[in-house]
Amino acid sequence: MKVIVPKNAGVCWGVERAIDMAYQTIHESQYHKIVSLGPLVHNPEVVEDFKSKGVEVISDLKESQAGTVVFRSHGVPLNTYEEAKTKGLEVVDATCPFVKRSQNYARRFSRQGYFVVIVGDEKHPEMKSVRSFSPGPHLVTMNPKDLEKIPVDSKVGLIAQTTIPLTIFEAMVEAAQKRFPEVKTHDTICDATKIRQEEAAETARQVECMLIIGGKESSNTKKLTKICKEIQPKSYEIEHEREIDFSWFEGVKILGVTAGASTPVPVIQRVCSYILDNLSQKRIQQAI
Amino acid sequence: MKVIVPKNAGVCWGVERAIDMAYQTIHESQYHKIVSLGPLVHNPEVVEDFKSKGVEVISDLKESQAGTVVFRSHGVPLNTYEEAKTKGLEVVDATCPFVKRSQNYARRFSRQGYFVVIVGDEKHPEMKSVRSFSPGPHLVTMNPKDLEKIPVDSKVGLIAQTTIPLTIFEAMVEAAQKRFPEVKTHDTICDATKIRQEEAAETARQVECMLIIGGKESSNTKKLTKICKEIQPKSYEIEHEREIDFSWFEGVKILGVTAGASTPVPVIQRVCSYILDNLSQKRIQQAI
Repeated sequence: MKVIVPKNAGVCWGVERAIDMAYQTIHESQYHKIVSLGPLVHNPEVVEDFKSKGVEVISDLKESQAGTVVFRSHGVPLNTYEEAKTKGLEVVDATCPFVKRSQNYARRFSRQGYFVVIVGDEKHPEMKSVRSFSPGPHLVTMNPKDLEKIPVDSKVGLIAQTTIPLTIFEAMVEAAQKRFPEVKTHDTICDATKIRQEEAAETARQVECMLIIGGKESSNTKKLTKICKEIQPKSYEIEHEREIDFSWFEGVKILGVTAGASTPVPVIQRVCSYILDNLSQKRIQQAI
Repeated sequence: MKVIVPKNAGVCWGVERAIDMAYQTIHESQYHKIVSLGPLVHNPEVVEDFKSKGVEVISDLKESQAGTVVFRSHGVPLNTYEEAKTKGLEVVDATCPFVKRSQNYARRFSRQGYFVVIVGDEKHPEMKSVRSFSPGPHLVTMNPKDLEKIPVDSKVGLIAQTTIPLTIFEAMVEAAQKRFPEVKTHDTICDATKIRQEEAAETARQVECMLIIGGKESSNTKKLTKICKEIQPKSYEIEHEREIDFSWFEGVKILGVTAGASTPVPVIQRVCSYILDNLSQKRIQQAI
């Protein structure tokens, strides 16, 4: 059996970079306390590995008194930088460069006197970070109706949460152009999510069975499974290799494997090796 | 003497990522031939180090018959992927994620029937890569006058070279909006260059002497030196620490050090250590 994995499966490079930076920090500050503000990635194994290396996950800077704090790829609110400085914490800022770019545009629009509309989910940590960089009036929403709350004579500047579909951003821009005399936009979408979905679909088309790795709670993993299932009904979602039922692979010559945004690349590789090792052992047993 | 270095001095993380990927490739494929298509960064020391580890720089895939080829952060023309595949080369694609995003928008605009205007310098390798992803009519230019070459009834989609100033892109968008019935834009600028310049200026304001590290031929290093010199006349550009004249630092309590886009972070650290080591040796000599 041949196994194919799309190029952009699993965590995006922004999250991968954050994980790398955390490991680098562990390596450099062996006798130092390290905490991460929120989990670096929603994957219990990775969080467990960091824990075993002395990196604790905290949810508030109040819980940390000294040492190094890692800010994850989502970004943190602006005042968190100040708070860390006041406490004398060393900061490793793993904010995704695409999110940094959004923060910069949120600040720039505000300084130029624009009412900033950030198209996204206001509960998402990225949005809590980005909006905090906008010192003037701003709004986080994905609903064009909300634009009615903004005075009609406003100059409006639109940016987007990095992970939303382009169509949602475009609909908001269109609605804004109809209502306001001056509208400026910066497309701050990162296409990692979209590319992952496109590649999963492309892979599903080429295989006889598709495996999707991801957390049970991960909505982006569910989305991937749905996309794959529509193309290849023999698509199975797993959280861990122990859930694999080898009867899935009977008669399968090409297997596709992809993973949600919280699955690090080494985990994908491990699952693939696990499958191939088990299949070859079975073949050996059958031969005996 | 205290030395301060702005957070974003030296190569951007897109180039850093490419260098990391190349070292990773060396680590993983010890008995394999590795080439890089063009230098990964315009820094003779780095190129020399890669050479000592067996990585050869080639300018054309014709020069390579087998093994692994690294595509650098600028990106490569679309047909280079095909060419590598035909030759059976293994590809390590270190194209900067911001450039990848531009490539995707160039393709998408074309597929949607837009005349694609890529605002940038047509001689730059990034532009040669991005334009190749646009199968339909397109133009690479920074001159608003060139828009006259495009039929007036066209739908026009604009994207930008990742490193150009935002003002140039905005001027082109404005000119396009005046001429064409339908204009769409995706701001594909990465603000790494701008941030590096802003931080250099901020640092220059805080110090009594400023050191700028970078290649003699590097235009972005010259720009940094110019910006710093206007703020702090005692600003000096060097390519290598051996050019340092320690009389520059007499009476200096705070020194600022920054670097152009072709200088890897470890080189900046090395120059700082060199200065501090020499100064403390001098102090010891004076004490004796």
